[in-house]
Amino acid sequence: MKVVELRARTGIESLVACERPLPQPGPGEILVRIKAATLNYRDLAIARGSYGSFALPIVPLSDACGEVSALGEGVARFAVGDAVCPLYVMDWMSGPPQADVVARRLGGPQDGVLAQYVCVPARSAVRAPRHMSALEAATLPIAGVTAWQALFVQGRVTPGDVVVVQGTGGVSMFALQLARAAGASVIATSASQDKAQRARALGAREVIDYRAHPDWQRRVMELTDGRGADHVIDVVGGANVARSIGAVRIGGTVSLIGFLDDTRGVIDLPEAFRRVVTLNCISVGSRAAFEALIAATEASELRPVVGRVFGFDEVHAAYEHLAAGAHFGKVAIAFE
Amino acid sequence: MKVVELRARTGIESLVACERPLPQPGPGEILVRIKAATLNYRDLAIARGSYGSFALPIVPLSDACGEVSALGEGVARFAVGDAVCPLYVMDWMSGPPQADVVARRLGGPQDGVLAQYVCVPARSAVRAPRHMSALEAATLPIAGVTAWQALFVQGRVTPGDVVVVQGTGGVSMFALQLARAAGASVIATSASQDKAQRARALGAREVIDYRAHPDWQRRVMELTDGRGADHVIDVVGGANVARSIGAVRIGGTVSLIGFLDDTRGVIDLPEAFRRVVTLNCISVGSRAAFEALIAATEASELRPVVGRVFGFDEVHAAYEHLAAGAHFGKVAIAFE
Amino acid sequence: MKVVELRARTGIESLVACERPLPQPGPGEILVRIKAATLNYRDLAIARGSYGSFALPIVPLSDACGEVSALGEGVARFAVGDAVCPLYVMDWMSGPPQADVVARRLGGPQDGVLAQYVCVPARSAVRAPRHMSALEAATLPIAGVTAWQALFVQGRVTPGDVVVVQGTGGVSMFALQLARAAGASVIATSASQDKAQRARALGAREVIDYRAHPDWQRRVMELTDGRGADHVIDVVGGANVARSIGAVRIGGTVSLIGFLDDTRGVIDLPEAFRRVVTLNCISVGSRAAFEALIAATEASELRPVVGRVFGFDEVHAAYEHLAAGAHFGKVAIAFE
Amino acid sequence: MKVVELRARTGIESLVACERPLPQPGPGEILVRIKAATLNYRDLAIARGSYGSFALPIVPLSDACGEVSALGEGVARFAVGDAVCPLYVMDWMSGPPQADVVARRLGGPQDGVLAQYVCVPARSAVRAPRHMSALEAATLPIAGVTAWQALFVQGRVTPGDVVVVQGTGGVSMFALQLARAAGASVIATSASQDKAQRARALGAREVIDYRAHPDWQRRVMELTDGRGADHVIDVVGGANVARSIGAVRIGGTVSLIGFLDDTRGVIDLPEAFRRVVTLNCISVGSRAAFEALIAATEASELRPVVGRVFGFDEVHAAYEHLAAGAHFGKVAIAFE
Repeated sequence: MKVVELRARTGIESLVACERPLPQPGPGEILVRIKAATLNYRDLAIARGSYGSFALPIVPLSDACGEVSALGEGVARFAVGDAVCPLYVMDWMSGPPQADVVARRLGGPQDGVLAQYVCVPARSAVRAPRHMSALEAATLPIAGVTAWQALFVQGRVTPGDVVVVQGTGGVSMFALQLARAAGASVIATSASQDKAQRARALGAREVIDYRAHPDWQRRVMELTDGRGADHVIDVVGGANVARSIGAVRIGGTVSLIGFLDDTRGVIDLPEAFRRVVTLNCISVGSRAAFEALIAATEASELRPVVGRVFGFDEVHAAYEHLAAGAHFGKVAIAFE
Repeated sequence: MKVVELRARTGIESLVACERPLPQPGPGEILVRIKAATLNYRDLAIARGSYGSFALPIVPLSDACGEVSALGEGVARFAVGDAVCPLYVMDWMSGPPQADVVARRLGGPQDGVLAQYVCVPARSAVRAPRHMSALEAATLPIAGVTAWQALFVQGRVTPGDVVVVQGTGGVSMFALQLARAAGASVIATSASQDKAQRARALGAREVIDYRAHPDWQRRVMELTDGRGADHVIDVVGGANVARSIGAVRIGGTVSLIGFLDDTRGVIDLPEAFRRVVTLNCISVGSRAAFEALIAATEASELRPVVGRVFGFDEVHAAYEHLAAGAHFGKVAIAFE
Repeated sequence: MKVVELRARTGIESLVACERPLPQPGPGEILVRIKAATLNYRDLAIARGSYGSFALPIVPLSDACGEVSALGEGVARFAVGDAVCPLYVMDWMSGPPQADVVARRLGGPQDGVLAQYVCVPARSAVRAPRHMSALEAATLPIAGVTAWQALFVQGRVTPGDVVVVQGTGGVSMFALQLARAAGASVIATSASQDKAQRARALGAREVIDYRAHPDWQRRVMELTDGRGADHVIDVVGGANVARSIGAVRIGGTVSLIGFLDDTRGVIDLPEAFRRVVTLNCISVGSRAAFEALIAATEASELRPVVGRVFGFDEVHAAYEHLAAGAHFGKVAIAFE
Repeated sequence: MKVVELRARTGIESLVACERPLPQPGPGEILVRIKAATLNYRDLAIARGSYGSFALPIVPLSDACGEVSALGEGVARFAVGDAVCPLYVMDWMSGPPQADVVARRLGGPQDGVLAQYVCVPARSAVRAPRHMSALEAATLPIAGVTAWQALFVQGRVTPGDVVVVQGTGGVSMFALQLARAAGASVIATSASQDKAQRARALGAREVIDYRAHPDWQRRVMELTDGRGADHVIDVVGGANVARSIGAVRIGGTVSLIGFLDDTRGVIDLPEAFRRVVTLNCISVGSRAAFEALIAATEASELRPVVGRVFGFDEVHAAYEHLAAGAHFGKVAIAFE
């Protein structure tokens, strides 16, 4: 079968297409024929050597959707032909994270999904939403689950809440759509008029141009009559964390999810105390969170935002498109 | 000014219209000109002598909306002309209930809102939703807040959840609308085809005829592929509590809210353990819960279900309409 | 190896000692040489045919402590010689219960621990507390974890809380000791002066004689200056549930754990609403809860209450001792 | 009566003793004869002009204990002679903080407790613990409540948890004692051998010398077998926040409480994500939290650590003692 291997940590050119033998599902495992995969910043950082130190070569990518093509001994959870998504954090079934369940991860240290077939334990996969294409479902395992975890597991967004999302990447667009599905109002930030328009089309009540308003948190305070947002999803890091705190109400929540700008996050402590903020660091979620997300997408017929789609032989171009930062929604790879 | 007094606990005929002097707002108080009020079963039970033992006479009713017509000394929270709803539990500002904040209640032991004017502490009132009429806003203080408390404060409904509501009374219809606003699916129960039709119009996915299916919990299991609902709102009591428990999933929640059938609730313990159910007894909510409810109704433009509307001189007829049990949504009294 | 089988559901005499071949640990499994086991009411109910409908014969008992005597392929979690307790609910690792993790249970439907050796998945066992004997550790899997789950996972007992425990069975004595370790005050109930004395020795502040005070909840109200307890652990069921509700403060919690008197639980709904009670149905807990319990017992050097100890060839007598209800703490079986 | 006024923001010398007329309790108020007060860093920062911008002159200090000497109209909550502590955040009764309840604070913007008599609303005071002297009870309103809020309201410490406290100031010593009362193990940090000794005497399992181990978080990892602490109380700010995050387990909690070093807090985001940390900003707590704290201190007979005690005419010396940072426990002022 065809796979792509990451053979060095020197950049996108370290990704090499090659052949590997078709794997066989062991007891309790399923063999999945991959139909679509999507990229995350993690994948780019691993290729560039700025994240992780896994043994190489490794098959990259964590997010995919495929079809069950064979069952290992004793598997009752799925049938051949089922559309499934493998779990990124393979052993995290439910509840809060614990040391012994967060170690095994698809796309590093475990081999990932940029392969025609992968074997995973049946318990490390979920049924894909009925109303989604394979490309759409392939956006869920990291970006969708992370947004869900932030809003509804570690956070507690309810109807009428005001939620702030930053930029138009995968997690932010899921957070926008899921917050809307939960009856919340959403304020987005974007420096692009085109992306602002698309965020509005997805339900954002307001979009703040963060170039025109570098202290965008002040606009959030104005837009909320001086009260502040209930929940801010921070994907930027650095000094932006202090801005996110400056945008929430007393007793509000900031979910820390990314570090596009800076791996350090900076807090203005007196301001944080004045607002009695809770800062939740988010790192994906459990299978139970994934299943709740799927139920939510089915109930609201939510369709994820798939950005540009590349072919299996266009992997380098896909990575470069993500690296350029011009995408809206998820960058995807279709397998056929 | 015109008021109605309950002068005995012998039934609806104990309600007597009379005159009282116009009250003056003391320091920190507001004078509210009542424009609309709504009835709850509590009011009927008090009139019939089956609930409470308050000193008589008392002005009945807890739920109203009116206009601020005068401010006591030091009041900055409201301005004259503001549309407001007084709190039913006057001193419960936020957080879980505590003994010293749940004692004072409008409509017993404190004088209620069936009067042209009432004085309440400014902190014991909230601004009415901008998009609602006085009649609509008058449905909120008990029925709306109780549904909010069950679903989002003591419960934790998220998008994609399945919520079961019983009958078509005030709390149940609020629970239906609020669960829908939060992205949940709703299964309702009703023995009337007409009411079933109206529940569907409000967004119920399914309506179970509990006369045709006395063990309606089995239908819920079928409709959820054997999994069970995430949350059941029980307003019936008696043996129905065991049915509600039989309708939830493992780890699900039943909110106990009423006792239309029986003041006793019966649990089948082995079944309850098997499902690891949480049973939340609900008794309205705090001012913070009320304010969150208002934000939610504004964000989703939710309009409460006002049933039949009576005039101020038709109070006996309004109580009798509630007693007959044929209403859909809240029974209301318009003051002018 | 020697095992005991339950061959019918006609009572204690259906338990028959026999031989089975020594099991071999498969991949990911451990072989445990059992050193001690303890009994739960569940075991008695299964033998009498009033609980479950498992395929027979079955090896009974759920709670044990033993020594790892061999490792299956790939096991890194334990070493040979480690003292371990198997999990009763074998697949419940952490978080709230879910349908697919609560099915497999030791002692029915899965074969239990009344055998010289048992094989379990390595992930379905925990290291025994360092300071406990095998007999003491064998009390933990159901009774200890259940008390932990009630007080600290589904409940939230903090220092200064008042906790009520009923009778002197295994769960109640763990609840007493764990509540004391958490800085709470404990009120116990017992009809035996001797047991009352022993409950006081374990730290109970007061013991109410429920024969002298059938409405023992009134004594709790007196002992708490009319405020009520923060948390009641109900192991009795029936009308006692209403008494438990009558013993808690406004906003308090009742954990429903057993049904010694009656499989039905009865609630006085108006009283339950007045107190805004939360009723948590408890059914053991996850491996994460078990590990937290173990850390707690080690930090406080808590030693479980082992009642009478029987030999492996005295199984019938052990069951009869439990059936007689005269025990204090757990009824145990020592294997050598 | 004698009071001290802060008449400028230029330092400790801006504190001036003078006379004011004895206040009279209005409706719902109590007159309290102050017997003891304690200092917080907030008081020092206000005197130095680095915190707040309140109208001057102001009576400083937030924390006191006194005796009710007169009751305003309608007060039933207390009797003359009761020992009470006024609330620092006067209107925060229970639940999470909200904008309209956190504005009024004793010691700025409201006049504080460095006066022979103060009037406060009866609902803005609590009964002092029965077993404490006035000096001891005067340590509770900020330092005690803050530690309680961190450990048991926004945090959730249970028996067997490992809690890290930093230094030997008021909040840290309360956190140490309360964590011990809850059955947790405590690791403290201190650069003074003498203070380390006293922390051990209060129950600390280990004390890390942060001068010898600037990366003290590594010692915490060693002391917890590589697992990390469950909860860290950070009172230092700056780069220490990253160290606190480096000291917790996966899924652990850091309470941010102070900024002795730096008003900015710095987070290493990849590390924070790896540990899925929750960061709770703490700013005192509600009256309900205060009452729970009092119940806990009574149940465990916890006695606060009172450091050096100054007379009413030694206020400047008391502030200078706090400024020198050599104290252990709370710096106090006795009024007679």
